[in-house]
Amino acid sequence: MNEAVAAADTAWILAAFTAVSLMVPGLALFYGGMVSVRNTLNMAMMTFGAFAVVGILWIVFGYSTVLGNSLGGLGIVGNPAEYFGSSALLDVPTEPGLPPALIAAFQLLFAGITVALISGSVADRMKFGAWMAFAGLWATLVYFPVAHWVFAFDSEDGSTIGGWIANRLGAVDFAGGTAVHVNAGVAALALVLVLGRRTSFTNPPRPHSLPLTMLGSGILFFGWFGFNGGSALAAGNNASVVVLNTVAAACAGTVSWLAVEWIRERHATSLGASSGIIAALVAITPACGAVSPLGALLVGALAGAVCCLAVSLKYRLGFDDALDVVGVHLVGGVLGTVLVGFLATESAPNAVNGLFYGGGLDLLWRQIVAVGAVLIYSFAVTWIIVMVLKKTMGIRVERDVELEGLDIALHGETAYVLDAPGPTSRVVKAADAIAGAENIATNAAPNSATI
Amino acid sequence: MNEAVAAADTAWILAAFTAVSLMVPGLALFYGGMVSVRNTLNMAMMTFGAFAVVGILWIVFGYSTVLGNSLGGLGIVGNPAEYFGSSALLDVPTEPGLPPALIAAFQLLFAGITVALISGSVADRMKFGAWMAFAGLWATLVYFPVAHWVFAFDSEDGSTIGGWIANRLGAVDFAGGTAVHVNAGVAALALVLVLGRRTSFTNPPRPHSLPLTMLGSGILFFGWFGFNGGSALAAGNNASVVVLNTVAAACAGTVSWLAVEWIRERHATSLGASSGIIAALVAITPACGAVSPLGALLVGALAGAVCCLAVSLKYRLGFDDALDVVGVHLVGGVLGTVLVGFLATESAPNAVNGLFYGGGLDLLWRQIVAVGAVLIYSFAVTWIIVMVLKKTMGIRVERDVELEGLDIALHGETAYVLDAPGPTSRVVKAADAIAGAENIATNAAPNSATI
Amino acid sequence: MNEAVAAADTAWILAAFTAVSLMVPGLALFYGGMVSVRNTLNMAMMTFGAFAVVGILWIVFGYSTVLGNSLGGLGIVGNPAEYFGSSALLDVPTEPGLPPALIAAFQLLFAGITVALISGSVADRMKFGAWMAFAGLWATLVYFPVAHWVFAFDSEDGSTIGGWIANRLGAVDFAGGTAVHVNAGVAALALVLVLGRRTSFTNPPRPHSLPLTMLGSGILFFGWFGFNGGSALAAGNNASVVVLNTVAAACAGTVSWLAVEWIRERHATSLGASSGIIAALVAITPACGAVSPLGALLVGALAGAVCCLAVSLKYRLGFDDALDVVGVHLVGGVLGTVLVGFLATESAPNAVNGLFYGGGLDLLWRQIVAVGAVLIYSFAVTWIIVMVLKKTMGIRVERDVELEGLDIALHGETAYVLDAPGPTSRVVKAADAIAGAENIATNAAPNSATI
Repeated sequence: MNEAVAAADTAWILAAFTAVSLMVPGLALFYGGMVSVRNTLNMAMMTFGAFAVVGILWIVFGYSTVLGNSLGGLGIVGNPAEYFGSSALLDVPTEPGLPPALIAAFQLLFAGITVALISGSVADRMKFGAWMAFAGLWATLVYFPVAHWVFAFDSEDGSTIGGWIANRLGAVDFAGGTAVHVNAGVAALALVLVLGRRTSFTNPPRPHSLPLTMLGSGILFFGWFGFNGGSALAAGNNASVVVLNTVAAACAGTVSWLAVEWIRERHATSLGASSGIIAALVAITPACGAVSPLGALLVGALAGAVCCLAVSLKYRLGFDDALDVVGVHLVGGVLGTVLVGFLATESAPNAVNGLFYGGGLDLLWRQIVAVGAVLIYSFAVTWIIVMVLKKTMGIRVERDVELEGLDIALHGETAYVLDAPGPTSRVVKAADAIAGAENIATNAAPNSATI
Repeated sequence: MNEAVAAADTAWILAAFTAVSLMVPGLALFYGGMVSVRNTLNMAMMTFGAFAVVGILWIVFGYSTVLGNSLGGLGIVGNPAEYFGSSALLDVPTEPGLPPALIAAFQLLFAGITVALISGSVADRMKFGAWMAFAGLWATLVYFPVAHWVFAFDSEDGSTIGGWIANRLGAVDFAGGTAVHVNAGVAALALVLVLGRRTSFTNPPRPHSLPLTMLGSGILFFGWFGFNGGSALAAGNNASVVVLNTVAAACAGTVSWLAVEWIRERHATSLGASSGIIAALVAITPACGAVSPLGALLVGALAGAVCCLAVSLKYRLGFDDALDVVGVHLVGGVLGTVLVGFLATESAPNAVNGLFYGGGLDLLWRQIVAVGAVLIYSFAVTWIIVMVLKKTMGIRVERDVELEGLDIALHGETAYVLDAPGPTSRVVKAADAIAGAENIATNAAPNSATI
Repeated sequence: MNEAVAAADTAWILAAFTAVSLMVPGLALFYGGMVSVRNTLNMAMMTFGAFAVVGILWIVFGYSTVLGNSLGGLGIVGNPAEYFGSSALLDVPTEPGLPPALIAAFQLLFAGITVALISGSVADRMKFGAWMAFAGLWATLVYFPVAHWVFAFDSEDGSTIGGWIANRLGAVDFAGGTAVHVNAGVAALALVLVLGRRTSFTNPPRPHSLPLTMLGSGILFFGWFGFNGGSALAAGNNASVVVLNTVAAACAGTVSWLAVEWIRERHATSLGASSGIIAALVAITPACGAVSPLGALLVGALAGAVCCLAVSLKYRLGFDDALDVVGVHLVGGVLGTVLVGFLATESAPNAVNGLFYGGGLDLLWRQIVAVGAVLIYSFAVTWIIVMVLKKTMGIRVERDVELEGLDIALHGETAYVLDAPGPTSRVVKAADAIAGAENIATNAAPNSATI
């Protein structure tokens, strides 16, 4: 029954899809660990919630909008009616290749994760309902079109027309440096410019759980091999080179971020290691199929150093990108996409030379145009979406809620309950010890003391 | 040497097996985060311990009992002697297909995880030794036979006879809605009816770490793609449709559980999001190969809403299913299995129509019979097992141990030690500050104060 | 373009590579959870940092040193010039097989993880800079040569000569019992002998987060299927038998460690379950392709019991192997490698009989020689490396730093900030309650009380 399916390629993409799916909790914890203990759940819920909303839209019309035949052949957006409801994706492919249902599932994860990335910028102050509405609108009006530009390739027989960046412009973006990272990064900028700064902007709370953040970055590291390697859409030499380049860049980014920290502050922090990994992975995303392993080390090292410097920009420029979506995803995404124009080598899977390999400026200008187009479109439409939400439902929590923390106010929960009420609570014992030493009546109600 | 092996299918099932293996710690943390800080380790240990016991039994006689030739050709239980000790599983298959060793490994995980699922119901009060004995007995007397009914298909040449539900009845259960979820869910009900309620039943402790629970649900989400997608036993269109349906259902379940919460309590909780994902994944497990993507959204949305309502049943009916194994796995499993009778569509991998697609009642009654058979058999035999354990070794910890917490009493450990004894303990500093303000002698021993 | 690639095998090894990559955060958390809350980040950072350094070296010259043509055909070390910079790894293979880039990526993870394993022994007292230097030197001078001995097989046409253990000696080590576990374990011993004991050696802090450690062991369990199963380098019966043996051993090791604990202390601890899993996985690593499933149960059970007894050796012999790298990896690695000489059966993938299967002593002495060679070489060279580092940059933190904790001193961070400063801090409320009961002025500054 599955005779037309390329079984080995399907095996890898099924596995890659599965790996990428773990990025959902990975991102939730990466962000959740970085905020205060009062906003942890809200942070994680923005990932879970956005992912769920976008996944539903994807099944209904997203796949069709991204990978359907380009409306009017313009390369701007796919025809949402073509696969509306996704039922047509059940069919066995009629010619050798991946099952369409698998491509749909794989790209669903890309859409959901890209939207969730943005949430890092709005930590500690955005209404949850507004965030959920933003997620649905942004996916529909920004992500789906831009993903069509970048990820929809013309079919070989010309019967299906894809996006303008992938086909007309011919920029190289292996796994989504523009559609995912530049896109989410610049949207984060537009969003926080409208949303405004946290009350605690100049004195933000320290990360409440760095082990959680390290776990998150480690899970993202893992998922990224599915993300980049799966973007080869086949189990072959291309995917193999891609994962080698990806792991090389991550190693270099870790070391370079820590080195810059060390030079500046004489500390190599765990937050820096986690951030360096992610910055490098962002930058290698568009480049993983275009560069050599040494090139990948260079991309990773530059990303680690540049992003480490870039995350302090928000203080100088005054926009409150709480968890550095701009500093890491926008800066890293632009850097990686542009570096392709310099470091691409014909012997890598993308088989094209950049400036340093004798390719002249031909690739470089295409990379810059791709970046610029996504920057402008995403910033402008995001700004409009957020302004509309602000004027209608409101996007920011009350000041009281912000001071109190969003977990209790919005979600009715606290992240942790680490005391154990009852006869052996050690807090109580400590209080008793103090009280006892002072001969104070125990009716100071220490039994209700909780931490 | 491996010429007869279907290599691409083997590649995917190896990867799916690996993904499912992460569900073991995933489940341990999902449950561990939901209980109080005094019972966290006991909760996680019930998963680790049950998995280990069942894994050993599986190698010795479990595989043979589930997937061996049906004893007497009755479809009730496989011949335990056929592959006793599993040494025969080393051989290279003689005809194209998956290596038997791989099927054995994959199904070992199903067995171990199904038993571990039950542990959620008995939180905070069951003897660990009794739990371990229960795990071994229940796997042998309940899971192995029921898995034979559902997962053992007749061989094409008729030389091997499989289970009655899969072959004689012909109910559709793609990845274990009956054998895994209905089975574990109803066993949990029988178990807690004998075990009795927690002392804290009407006022249970809040989850001690919701980030741990979110991580757990995220890991289970990831593993489920191996669980459902791997159940296709091939890297083709079927597995692709299955993973698409599975992710669609999970998204819909998250949103619908949160929506019901919002309507009832004006809060969208992280516990709700985690539960909605799992409820939807449970319900799509039997249905993932039978429905369209829109059907999967419906299955997921119904599961999220129905299970959200079902989890409060325990308070009305008075059985203490601590972490809602009944409300999620029994209710979700029944719902998903029965919905197949309505929503199955011929164009999906199972290639059969349900009531809404013109298939009449033919599939629906088979689904109901399959559910009913598992419900009755599992409830009855579980009840007998638990009664025997109660009369012999005893199943419930002493009241003192329950009040004190099981981690210290049974495992000799506490989950966390978050103070740092020594000169810089900030607790001590705080105590000192208070003490100092009162001019109290510091010999109130604050150095021993720990939290 | 990828015609010469064995696509199905590539699909599995891509997935296996991805699974193994999660062992990096898995190991970081496994170790991080076991130390005190003041050294958690340092512990995790030693894994992240070592992995990054080794990954960079691997790309530059490591792959070439391990898998390049043996220098002088001696089987001692590969030619570092052959693939210097790894650019030659971009090419599509010219004959059917795995892409060289994929083998390079897969083996990069082995190198990075092996070095990180050692860090468990030096918890709480090693300079971070010295650790990073050690990681690079040890990889270069110890791991790369030893991995060449064990993992570099002669090419079939004789054009490439591999390592002496794999080819000349012909010992069986499926996935690295010698090169990974014996190697890291004995290096840990040499390292701590020079480094010295922790101040807290006789009264070490309890694990600060056992859930983190259980998560870590669970992630390692998951990754190990990629590690062992991927070492088959093909998606076939061999990998299938390997994963079945691996999961069987892990189950047996869990139960046997807990049983020994129970007999000795009447407690089955979560630390014991986590350790038993890992001990069994270590021992089955060399043996997973050589034994039957029942043999795997025996290997796992022996490893669980022997390592449970071995971890107390450090107190009797007085070396401070803080997190039992010697007791688990050295002892488990030696045990598993030697057991192959007894339990190997011709019907398993390695197709050779050990002593108990009629193979006589032929295999056993080869196993012992392989273990002995790695023991001696690794211990000696490690000792020299550490002595050089001690004399030059210094390897141990100041006593003050050790008492204070390394997280703050070396990394400028604390793992957790679990209070929430501000008007609703419950610590403050508790302090207020006490203070209030005593009619003490609230200017005791409880607002600054933090925990």
